[in-house]
Amino acid sequence: MALPRSIRRTNPITLVLAAVLSFGFLVFLFAPSSNPGAVLNAKRKIANAAAHPLSPPTAPFVKPDASLNGLSKPPPVVHYHLNNVTTTADPVGNQETVLILTPLARFYQGYWNNLLALSYPHSLIALGFIIPKTKEGNAATVALQAAIATTQQGPEGKRFASVTILRQDFDPPISSQDESERHKKDNQKARRAAMSRARNSLLFTTLGPSTSWVLWLDADIIETPPTLIQDLAFHDKPVLVPNCFQRFTNEENKPDTRPYDYNSWQDSQVAADMARDMGPEEIIFEGYADIATYRTLMAMTADRSESRNQQAIIPLDGVGGTALLVKAEVHRDGAMFPPFPFYHLIETEGFAKMARRLGWGCFGLPNYFVYHYNE
Amino acid sequence: MALPRSIRRTNPITLVLAAVLSFGFLVFLFAPSSNPGAVLNAKRKIANAAAHPLSPPTAPFVKPDASLNGLSKPPPVVHYHLNNVTTTADPVGNQETVLILTPLARFYQGYWNNLLALSYPHSLIALGFIIPKTKEGNAATVALQAAIATTQQGPEGKRFASVTILRQDFDPPISSQDESERHKKDNQKARRAAMSRARNSLLFTTLGPSTSWVLWLDADIIETPPTLIQDLAFHDKPVLVPNCFQRFTNEENKPDTRPYDYNSWQDSQVAADMARDMGPEEIIFEGYADIATYRTLMAMTADRSESRNQQAIIPLDGVGGTALLVKAEVHRDGAMFPPFPFYHLIETEGFAKMARRLGWGCFGLPNYFVYHYNE
Repeated sequence: MALPRSIRRTNPITLVLAAVLSFGFLVFLFAPSSNPGAVLNAKRKIANAAAHPLSPPTAPFVKPDASLNGLSKPPPVVHYHLNNVTTTADPVGNQETVLILTPLARFYQGYWNNLLALSYPHSLIALGFIIPKTKEGNAATVALQAAIATTQQGPEGKRFASVTILRQDFDPPISSQDESERHKKDNQKARRAAMSRARNSLLFTTLGPSTSWVLWLDADIIETPPTLIQDLAFHDKPVLVPNCFQRFTNEENKPDTRPYDYNSWQDSQVAADMARDMGPEEIIFEGYADIATYRTLMAMTADRSESRNQQAIIPLDGVGGTALLVKAEVHRDGAMFPPFPFYHLIETEGFAKMARRLGWGCFGLPNYFVYHYNE
Repeated sequence: MALPRSIRRTNPITLVLAAVLSFGFLVFLFAPSSNPGAVLNAKRKIANAAAHPLSPPTAPFVKPDASLNGLSKPPPVVHYHLNNVTTTADPVGNQETVLILTPLARFYQGYWNNLLALSYPHSLIALGFIIPKTKEGNAATVALQAAIATTQQGPEGKRFASVTILRQDFDPPISSQDESERHKKDNQKARRAAMSRARNSLLFTTLGPSTSWVLWLDADIIETPPTLIQDLAFHDKPVLVPNCFQRFTNEENKPDTRPYDYNSWQDSQVAADMARDMGPEEIIFEGYADIATYRTLMAMTADRSESRNQQAIIPLDGVGGTALLVKAEVHRDGAMFPPFPFYHLIETEGFAKMARRLGWGCFGLPNYFVYHYNE
């Protein structure tokens, strides 16, 4: 079809040239009252999956091996009862698991520190990363692994339930991570199509049947409230996006903030008319002067006063993905990030349209801020 | 949006009212040369993921427990190197893992027997089922579990690597599994939208980073060649569908076969024109007399002679899902089963269009047969 050559698979034989770092073992999770050896001999064990919410759905059986005593017996049978998988306004109380997914091109210590500061129980959080196969990606992988190693050997309360790192097998369409280059409109379609594929690869391979929530969190989000997950889940919405701003030093040399992500919006008649007259492969991008859509941009409606109502909530037609909380059931229904024009939308904005086509509502918090790294 | 009320979530709080049966344990997979106890103390172990192809990406770390000696130490670090995840024409030689996914409403022993007869190494096969929460679904679950238990305690060569059973949390739009009722055109949109959601839920929660191939196999497919997986993979195509027929007794009281699945087709100008004039919510269904699409139906192009070329292959625009081999990377790219009209297509036919939008080709084997149960 009409996809740019650069974002097609360079080698279709291998999809996931992936390195998965998995911290921790499933091993004896299901034998809280027995010693490790006993599990091997257990013929049948009923486990309450809600207590082990990140257990994988497809654990392989153990091949017989002469050196492994007892393993040539039939593998034990484990039942997971997942009736307790919920997505509610009280996720901590209900022990709901959260999968935090991050496409990562550069490693920022600020991102990791912010992640560590999240007050949501880390034992309920699984992390998933996808990193491009570039020189910069290799460096990011090394830095990420070092950070993970420190955290997972540190205090137990800070350790995450699991960490998965995927290395993507296709080259990013624009090699430079240079800010101005990345945001050029001509580069947007290829860049966001590749980002969609990365998000989809990450999502399809890490989501499990017991995941309650998926938090998309970009690698350059370096500051959020520590209660981010609780605050967003509290609204109990299928798809919810906070307002992504950026701290900077203004002309008066004073600390200031400014809007960063323009992808969260309410549609306009102008944009609808624009879409109607477009060719099937055309995409409406937000935030460019030469495409005036007159959409209501959430970034522009923020109340930045101290007395603002952080719980103010508005319905949205498009969402950005720098920070985005999604009920896992929305993804399970089929909502992904279209790498092709979907109603003339792509990536996270296309995802919002797809979620809405599936009957789920999208919402935003104009006065609740997360902050993007300032290059 | 315009989705029928009946297929919306009746209870959006819980998505997966699921029962996951997992046979086998991850336990000591990564310690082929040591005894089980040694793994617990291993600080860092490099594992070749190709040898453990179904290992889960998100194994949870083990919470400290006084009764588990040594488990309050930092969990061991496991690297999975997935560079060997391939999809090739020689999947057995390359130890490629296959995930067989089956939406199941009724359990047929013929389906299970056929599955058992597959000559592809069962240790490379993971099974995933999704079953509706109906009385019939409950009965199917019980029968399936009994079959699984027998197989997994039987000869090692027949045991599958893992089995996952999901119970869906939404009611099927048509309660009857009655053949004529299911195929009524008025029921098709709701039925196939619900089927799409079931397929997506199953796919999104069972696909892992090390899965090479996904074989969609309907629960009423009771006969395939034992070499089905090898034969299909041999063609090395992104999406490949065999021809689904049905055995029956003809008017002369002789055994005969007839086409069953009409969803595999090459598009026609008539259908393209039809789509252009349709409203955005309309869907073209194949195989109904009052919608003559003049598409080339693969079912009608079969050569049933003994001397037929079973390797004959044709490009397709729509595919059926009764038996369908998909490279996992196609799904990871984002290809799912649209429950909404996608280019006026839905479910597996919409999936084919989506795969093609993502740049992957769809193909069919007109002379290679699988057989559907005859009600």
